[in-house]
Amino acid sequence: MLGASHTGRVVRRLVGKAAIVLVCDGIADRPVQDYKFKTPLEVANTPHISRLTKAGSVGIVDPIRPGVRPGSDVAHFALLGYDPYQYYTGRGSLEAEGAGITLKPGDVAFRCNFATVDENMKVLDRRAGRIRTGTSRLAKVLNKMQLEAATGVKVQFHETVEHRAVLVFSGEGISRMVSDVDPHSTGVRILKSKPLDTTEEAARTAQGLNEFVRRSFELLKGHPVNIKRAKKGKKPANIILPRGPGTLPSITPLPELYNVKAACIAAVAMVRGICKIAGMSLIDVKGATGGLNTDFLAKARAAIEASRQNDLVFVHVKACDVASHDGDFKMKVKIIEKIDEMVGLIIDKVGLSTNYFSVTCDHCTPVNVRDHTSDPVPLAIAGPDVPSSRISKFTENNAAAGNIGRIPASSLIPTLMDYLGKAEKFGF
Amino acid sequence: MLGASHTGRVVRRLVGKAAIVLVCDGIADRPVQDYKFKTPLEVANTPHISRLTKAGSVGIVDPIRPGVRPGSDVAHFALLGYDPYQYYTGRGSLEAEGAGITLKPGDVAFRCNFATVDENMKVLDRRAGRIRTGTSRLAKVLNKMQLEAATGVKVQFHETVEHRAVLVFSGEGISRMVSDVDPHSTGVRILKSKPLDTTEEAARTAQGLNEFVRRSFELLKGHPVNIKRAKKGKKPANIILPRGPGTLPSITPLPELYNVKAACIAAVAMVRGICKIAGMSLIDVKGATGGLNTDFLAKARAAIEASRQNDLVFVHVKACDVASHDGDFKMKVKIIEKIDEMVGLIIDKVGLSTNYFSVTCDHCTPVNVRDHTSDPVPLAIAGPDVPSSRISKFTENNAAAGNIGRIPASSLIPTLMDYLGKAEKFGF
Repeated sequence: MLGASHTGRVVRRLVGKAAIVLVCDGIADRPVQDYKFKTPLEVANTPHISRLTKAGSVGIVDPIRPGVRPGSDVAHFALLGYDPYQYYTGRGSLEAEGAGITLKPGDVAFRCNFATVDENMKVLDRRAGRIRTGTSRLAKVLNKMQLEAATGVKVQFHETVEHRAVLVFSGEGISRMVSDVDPHSTGVRILKSKPLDTTEEAARTAQGLNEFVRRSFELLKGHPVNIKRAKKGKKPANIILPRGPGTLPSITPLPELYNVKAACIAAVAMVRGICKIAGMSLIDVKGATGGLNTDFLAKARAAIEASRQNDLVFVHVKACDVASHDGDFKMKVKIIEKIDEMVGLIIDKVGLSTNYFSVTCDHCTPVNVRDHTSDPVPLAIAGPDVPSSRISKFTENNAAAGNIGRIPASSLIPTLMDYLGKAEKFGF
Repeated sequence: MLGASHTGRVVRRLVGKAAIVLVCDGIADRPVQDYKFKTPLEVANTPHISRLTKAGSVGIVDPIRPGVRPGSDVAHFALLGYDPYQYYTGRGSLEAEGAGITLKPGDVAFRCNFATVDENMKVLDRRAGRIRTGTSRLAKVLNKMQLEAATGVKVQFHETVEHRAVLVFSGEGISRMVSDVDPHSTGVRILKSKPLDTTEEAARTAQGLNEFVRRSFELLKGHPVNIKRAKKGKKPANIILPRGPGTLPSITPLPELYNVKAACIAAVAMVRGICKIAGMSLIDVKGATGGLNTDFLAKARAAIEASRQNDLVFVHVKACDVASHDGDFKMKVKIIEKIDEMVGLIIDKVGLSTNYFSVTCDHCTPVNVRDHTSDPVPLAIAGPDVPSSRISKFTENNAAAGNIGRIPASSLIPTLMDYLGKAEKFGF
């Protein structure tokens, strides 16, 4: 298409093109002695991702900045182009949005577990025996709780998947600056939430949270669901343990920033939440689990389909990170090879001559560390007009020699938007 | 060791490991025509530093940001992980702390020289004939000065090494925003300190400083020490020339930021001052002079010893910078080869399989420029899990092709803290 720019000159506009971003959670690693100092990406057979690196540009990406260890939430903020130092307002709100709960500005959302405590409030099981049924009946009694008169906060409680739930506080004068009640381990007493700053709002919220937790025990301990569980020898879901408070971040959604349609294919609630807040439509894929057993090819097919209706398709695959947290090198290699199949399918269907395809990672999760590290992660971008790096394999060290150099994660979406002809000029 | 992260989850912690950072002041250079367009690092024989580059990661570092010429103080702020644009509050305070003077928040410290002026306040010698004795007797009369009634500032004067001294102003309503009295050259009159902003505090401090200098001449010109010097044909130390005002920077010390023990091995007062403010213990090494004649191997042995008791050991070697300011290419090569011996000794003793070792530079000091330039400087990091660059020699150009890419100096300590398992996650 030819169009007139604001200067009146006729410029080429790229049309009918989409960009697919495949985020392989935790795919980057460090050299592992037991595997001849190779990384899983170096050991895995990845002919299709290699098609991307040979055809396209390659580089390394700082999830946040060099030396800063990223949480998954913060890393995804950056990957979507938002500076987490400016926009990140806690995790609970992202989980809530991802679970389909719509927050209002000012609401404070907490991630929660149904858990088991003894009479002394000592945690016996943070997941209440991985309870799967009856949580909606338990939620019902919690939602009848009237905290407003006592503490000024309104309570909404939403059970989500298995032992997980979201607690939303709303009302005037509340704050996310409060500490967790969940002690994050068993055999210890639950914590008292404390205000993390000196505001009245934080004090009120901490008080409300402690009161909510206290009453949750009163309401749940004798609940018929738990009496039935006890009879079956199961642990009771006799308390709610909130953690990770968050408010809705005030970001300008991608469709508004770039005049694009964007879609997200992800199973992990937090990723879905961020993408939703960023203005993406959420596509559900049957068989996408967020685990090792996810249906990789179903996700690939969904991405291909979505690329026909959207300018930007964000695909998140969690499995590599799961294998990494388990310290399982061989499983990680296997997952990488499944991801490679996904990439092959997508490239074959959407093509690199009319569409953009980018593969990267939210953060490094070395199998030897079993947690996120700050290492830069590899990035490949292929598609029309993209300079070729001629790099033959997508690995951490090869990427460091790539033609992109080292960029922050928050630059990926702007770069793709520019390739799509969707980026506004800064200045004239 | 297993430890609980702030989220409470059990994570692997690397233990028994320390990181040693060797900062070779001014080691980086530019190609020199007389030496076949090679740099001193390219000419020097450095087999031991090469062991680091082959085993570990290599890259280039911007002392501040590209194109910004760093002072030594500002460069060290950044190297310790503190953004100088945010935290730097002048040099005098760093000199003071390095000289063993403990400042209070709000105190303004000036670097000073005992100098020689004529009756017209024209500077004859900025170092008073490099005076070595009698300065404590001169300081005594200066400390009797009562400026408080006249100008509102309290005076403490500390002689340090040779012709050097530190002047500390304390009291309510003073400021570091005043210009130097020291004209930084001879044959010209001393300067009148002027306020650098429109605050009352700056006006009061400038007035106090001018009054201090005026009275220093009155008190010193006829002092017995100077009369004796005159008899011996030596230049009198008849005035104090203050420069470089500074206040204590408000930074969070490294031990508090990362829960580590950190030590500094440096002879230069300013470097010691920054390290002290950053919460490091200062280790004195016999024979460490901050000059060309320093005992390199004694410093290496001190670093090895310190690495057993500390998580982070910061070693500063000034000699390369001295050779560079002298424009002495051959001497610089010689010094580099002595530093290489240091590195060999340290690697042999502490090992790279359990400890981290990093070599870098605070700023480039080209022998042809004889002053600091903004060029990026080489960096090597070796130790457990660190990806190998396979770069065979530590040079400016090789480093630019390294697997670290180009990072700011302030990212070095965070990166090492992540390797040590001491970095907190940002987000969840």
